Formats: sequence, structure tokens, C-alpha cells
Amino acid sequence: MLDYVDLKYKPTKNDLVVQYYVEPAKGLTFEQACEQVAAESSIGTWTELSTMNKKIATKLRPSVYSINKKKRLARIAYPQELFEAGNMPQILSAIAGNIYGMKVIDNLRLTDITFPKKMVQSFKGPRYGIKGIRKMLKLPKRPLLGTIVKPKVGLDEAHHAKVAYDSWVGGLDIVKDDENLTSMSFNNFQKRIDKTLKLRDKAERETGEKKIYMPNITAETFEMLKRAKYVERHGGEYVMVDVLTAGFAGLQTVRDHVFQVLHAHRAGHGALTRNPKHGITMHVLAMISRLIGVDQLHIGTADVGKMEGSPDEVLEIEREIEEPMIKGKNHILAQDWHGVKPVFAVASGGLHPGSIPKVHARMGPDVIMQFGGGVHGHPNGTLSGARAVRQAMDAVQHKSSLTDWAQNRVELKKALIKWGEAK
Amino acid sequence: MLDYVDLKYKPTKNDLVVQYYVEPAKGLTFEQACEQVAAESSIGTWTELSTMNKKIATKLRPSVYSINKKKRLARIAYPQELFEAGNMPQILSAIAGNIYGMKVIDNLRLTDITFPKKMVQSFKGPRYGIKGIRKMLKLPKRPLLGTIVKPKVGLDEAHHAKVAYDSWVGGLDIVKDDENLTSMSFNNFQKRIDKTLKLRDKAERETGEKKIYMPNITAETFEMLKRAKYVERHGGEYVMVDVLTAGFAGLQTVRDHVFQVLHAHRAGHGALTRNPKHGITMHVLAMISRLIGVDQLHIGTADVGKMEGSPDEVLEIEREIEEPMIKGKNHILAQDWHGVKPVFAVASGGLHPGSIPKVHARMGPDVIMQFGGGVHGHPNGTLSGARAVRQAMDAVQHKSSLTDWAQNRVELKKALIKWGEAK
Repeated sequence: MLDYVDLKYKPTKNDLVVQYYVEPAKGLTFEQACEQVAAESSIGTWTELSTMNKKIATKLRPSVYSINKKKRLARIAYPQELFEAGNMPQILSAIAGNIYGMKVIDNLRLTDITFPKKMVQSFKGPRYGIKGIRKMLKLPKRPLLGTIVKPKVGLDEAHHAKVAYDSWVGGLDIVKDDENLTSMSFNNFQKRIDKTLKLRDKAERETGEKKIYMPNITAETFEMLKRAKYVERHGGEYVMVDVLTAGFAGLQTVRDHVFQVLHAHRAGHGALTRNPKHGITMHVLAMISRLIGVDQLHIGTADVGKMEGSPDEVLEIEREIEEPMIKGKNHILAQDWHGVKPVFAVASGGLHPGSIPKVHARMGPDVIMQFGGGVHGHPNGTLSGARAVRQAMDAVQHKSSLTDWAQNRVELKKALIKWGEAK
Repeated sequence: MLDYVDLKYKPTKNDLVVQYYVEPAKGLTFEQACEQVAAESSIGTWTELSTMNKKIATKLRPSVYSINKKKRLARIAYPQELFEAGNMPQILSAIAGNIYGMKVIDNLRLTDITFPKKMVQSFKGPRYGIKGIRKMLKLPKRPLLGTIVKPKVGLDEAHHAKVAYDSWVGGLDIVKDDENLTSMSFNNFQKRIDKTLKLRDKAERETGEKKIYMPNITAETFEMLKRAKYVERHGGEYVMVDVLTAGFAGLQTVRDHVFQVLHAHRAGHGALTRNPKHGITMHVLAMISRLIGVDQLHIGTADVGKMEGSPDEVLEIEREIEEPMIKGKNHILAQDWHGVKPVFAVASGGLHPGSIPKVHARMGPDVIMQFGGGVHGHPNGTLSGARAVRQAMDAVQHKSSLTDWAQNRVELKKALIKWGEAK
């Protein structure tokens, strides 16, 4: 049997480096479990092979070069020849494939990756990125403000468009479909696009501001392309995809063939990311999304809203998708992004106007804040809810407290009262 | 706030029914957590909405109609209008989406689904199924025997083809690429197809048997279609896809546009399925795969090989993908498959000739047994390993014990000794 644990090995710039949390099955040492993880994710299997040769064993051999038994962390360096450039499903079938099902581990979590330059450059990365989006919206500095039409599903096309319109004229930049609204019996995709984009144009004329609609095109791949084309023909600059339920083969195709800004919703990520000992971290899913090339990605709210995700974790993800170079420290692996554009971080899930100062303080100006119930749950409805969000953002821009700012702004005042931020 | 728990509700044939394992966050009752799961997966959110109306609340309202607090199981019936027919990513964004990330649950597992007739019929199902495959191979009864070329990656095209050839002439029906072998710097997809299919033809001529090669086309969607077309043009009747790392949007596209038999590898499933309290069961992933229409699916080895999966669990999955009608009992939900063809179950992972009687006894004749190390790890190499597998299958067909049968069959004898089944 080959021996993959080699603590003297130093990863080269041609290695793809992976950090795993490894919990060995009963009776196995940490090293034994790491051996099997390294083998099954590369050139090995459970028994010695007659077909193995020295060239393969030398050239393609992975090295478990770092072990932290206390934290149960192992780092494995894989020669990049083990991976097909530009093929994310293949990369995952190796480093996030069979290994999760092996009897030799009780839990296994893929926690971070360093992609070598050749792999980074084999993917397209975001078409627009933060700069491109800010230019399109003519908003050079402040966080973008958006809403999700609510209820999540149920409104017909005309109602949907009206709720969107109210949101825009109330002061929001962005209106987004819910992650589970595609083309329904009660709300047809094409009709929704027609009506909503018409009212977007009206809202733009009336406010003098650029307004964005993000229609959810999530479906079978060709259907996604067809829907994106329809949106494009009707003057929509954005599309949205549920990247995890659609999957990475489809996402790569959308990135290759769709020319609009690509908003990535992460519905379902928690099935992979939630357990601290198993699965794949959101950090890794965010890296993959940046590589493939989404322009905007939901990463959490840094503990403000209804979704889990600690501030530390969410901020690390934000850095990873927005910065040009990540320097490895603590449990974070280094990553040179080699010029891949930054992704706009999206904070969404249970936010309301009162959440804005906290999210802004934690996540900075390069964030898109999305409010669903926090707009449409306003006591006076969507228009007032949208105004309250914009007023809260204005307060932060003017370094005022929300309660002061709300003194003569009734929409914000009512929002703060409803969601327990003022009496 | 709406109230979704309704234990008097009886699911109708137009409902999509889901069973979840639900672990509420601290301080919440089981019912409270179920309320939130039902809301977030359908029409609700965390706060009351001004945009909600009675029609939606009545027509699209889900019902938590069954609760087993001891086992932490809840069943929710969703009106099928909540889902887009034929759009698996959308269905998953609803019932396996945001809910995993909510603070109100500590763990959540999607354990079973009943799809209503309209949803079942909106997907294509397998093109060939078990009968179609048996007809193609002219093997009406016995389990199919296959191998995975090993090492998993590293062999060049010519070596790969030679290992495949040895496997076929040794007596195996099927040769399959590894899940992480696609188009590599050391092994180009097109060259591999050319060489391997040529030697398949030779093996067919020499043995008089039908031989199958399953090339792994996993990649970005268009690249998968291109690769499938290449295989088709060169006379290959099969393609293989890593369904979870490619994702369901891409898989649906492959099912729609590829006319070969579709072999589904489940690399990466364990990230979702392994934890008994969280994620999605393999049972559900298998149902989804049958609906979309794979012809063959890896479901485990019923505790015989290197991969986890209890016999009970694996056999329940096998029934679900092979039978026309599942009657609900215990924790299993009913499913009328409405004529969707059965999927051939694949047992793979750490099997060797000595495993055959056990796998056959547990999983029955409608199973494809795959041997990787269990063929190429044979002391005398691949050809002997393949012979040993076929001999072991012959023994089972003739109701002989392996040790008796091995008396004058040296390949089987050596295999049994190597893997500890004989001295």
C-alpha cells in the first residue's frame, strides 16, 4: 500500500491543496483515516493493484502534509494533473466525492481549498463583478438595497409586478424573485417578465434611478438559457439561479452562455454546510461560485436575521469572494485569485430596516441587503416598507441613529416599532 | 401568522408529501419548528405580510398532517401547485432549500417523498430501464458484472483500453470509467473512447458476448452532450454521469438529449446522506434519479464492501427504484410510479469475488455488481481477476459454494485466498 502521509512535503504552486476535518471510524488512527481519504480521492483504492505503476504513483501521488490531531484537521496537496481544468463537477467528484461514503470515516468536512493558478484561470469568473454592477447601477459606494417579492409564491403576474413597482418607487434598487418561484401554474415566467419589466421602466422614469429586476431562471439547463434569452430580449440585465439545486454543470453552462449579471441564490446549501463536522463549508461553496463566475452570492447575514451563520464565518466568506488575494492564516488557506473579479456579497434572510446599521457595520459597503418580510411586512404595506429601508440606509450614510432619523420619517418609525427596535 | 399544523388534514392525490426528521433549536417545541419548516418551504416567511391574500393562503397552504415526536418525524402535504412540473431544481429549492439554514432547527433531514401523478409524469424516467438493458446485453436473468478501470486515474489511453480489454475477455460484461476520470492531461477523453471501443469490438468478436463500456462524460452541460455525441458516433451505447457533482439541471438536460443508456454514479452523495439527522437520504436522491431518468444507479453494497449503507437501507432503495408501486409502511411513504421504468441498481465499492454470494443473496438478480480493486488487485492481474469474478458468479448460478467451485478454478481460488475467504 502506498503511504500518502508525508509531513515533510511542501506544497508547490502546481498543487491543489485541500483542508479536511476528519473524524476516523472507531479503531482507526487519524493518520489511517487520512491515508484512505487521500487514496480514494486520487489514485488509490482499498486493495493493492496489479495495474498501478511507478510513474503514476510518483507523478500523481497526493501528500497529507499537515496534520492537526487536536482539531482533527488534515491538509492534502494534490498534483493538479489529477483534475480536469475548467471542469468543476470532476474536481468535486475527486475531492468531495466517494470519500464521504467510506466506512473508515465517521464524519468528513471539506473546509477550504487553494486552487493553483492554472485551475483558477481555467474558469471564467464573474463577468461583471462588483465594479461592473456598481457602474450599471450608477451607485459607486453605498450598499445596494433589494427586496424579494413575497409571499414566496402565490401572487399572479400582475400582483407580482405591482409589488415590485411599489418596492422600486419606495426607494429600493433591486427586486428579486423568490428562490422557489420559477414558472408556475399561477404565475407564468414569460408573463411575469413582461409585466414586471414594464413596471420597472415606469419606476425608472418616475424615480430617475436605475432599477433592477432579478428573475429566477432556475430549471433544466436549456430552459434556463431560454429564459435568460427571453429576459434579455425584454431588456432585463439580470438573471438569478439557485446554484446548488441546479448544480455546477448547469451553472457553468449559464455562465458560458448568458450575458446578463448572474445572481446566485444558495437555497439548499445548509444540507451540505450546516453540520460543523460533515459536508462542505459555505466558504468552499463560495469559492467555487466565484471561480465559475457568479456576480452576486448569498453568503448570510452575519447573525442578524433568520438564517444561521456566525459573523466570523460570514466575514471570512465575504473576504474570500471580494478580495484579490487571501493570505493563509489560522484555519484559512491562502488563495491568489489571479485577477478573477470580486463577487458582490448578498445578505438576505429575516432582515428589516432596523438590521441595516448592524449589517453595514459588519459587512461593509460592498454588500447587497435583501429584505423580504422586512419590506412587505411593514404595517402600511410594500411602498412604506421600501421607504423605511431606504430611510434607514440614509440614516447610516448620514451617521445618524435610526431612532433620531425616524423622528420625522413615519415609515421608518413604524418599521422600527413593528420589529421591536423602538417603542 | 398562519397555522400549518393540522393533524386532521388528509393528504389528497394532488399533494406532494414530504417526510422530514426535525430537530428543533433550543427553546422551540417540535410543532413550532415544523411550522417554520412548512412556511419557509412554501408561502410563508418570518413575519406577517401585507401582500398575503386569502386565496393564496387557502389554495397553496401546506399542512403538517402527521407528527411523531418520539422519532422526530413530521409529514407535510404540499399542494402540487407549489411546484413547477418537470423542474427538479425548483422542487428542491422549495422542499430542500432554505429550510436547512434556518436558526429554528438544529438538524433537518428530508427522508422520503410521495410525488403526485402529475409530477411523476412531468419527468421522463429511464429511457431503457432494466428490461431495455437486459435486452441489449442479451442477459435475461443473471446479475451484470462490471469493473472500474483502476487506478482511478493515471493510466494513459492505451493502458486504459488494455485493462478494459482484459476485463472483458476475462468474462465481465461492463467496464466503467472511474468517477473522477474525465478528460485529463494524461488521458484524453476522445483518444480513450477511440482505443477502448476498438478493443471492446475485439473482445466481442473473441468472446461472442455483448460487452459494454461506460465512459464518464461528467463536465459542464454542453461538454457532456458533446462527449455523449462523440461516444455515440463511435458506437458506444452507454454514458456515465456523476449526478450529484454535475447537478440536476445538467442531468435533466443529459436525459433529454442523450440517447444512450445513462449510468449514474453518486460521487459526493455522502456529504448529503451520511449524517442520520441531517441532509437528504439516499432514498430520496434515488427517487429523484429515477424520476429524471437514469437507467442505472449506484445505491450501495448492503454492507458488504468499503462503503457505508446498511442492508435494510440499501434494500429499501433498491425496491424504490425497481418496483412499480411502493406501499407506504413504517417510515416509508407510498409511491405509485405510474409506469416509470425501473432503474438497474448498482452495487460498487470494495467488492471482490468472495462478496458475490452475499450481494446476490441480499440484492437479488437485478443488480449490477462492480469490482475495481477486486479485479485489478488479483495476484495474477486483471484478466485473472475478471475470470475469478465470472467464476464466482457461475458458482452462485450453479448453487455451489465458492470454495467447492474454486477447487479446479485457479483464478477464483487465488482471489478467495487474497481477500481472506479461503486459505
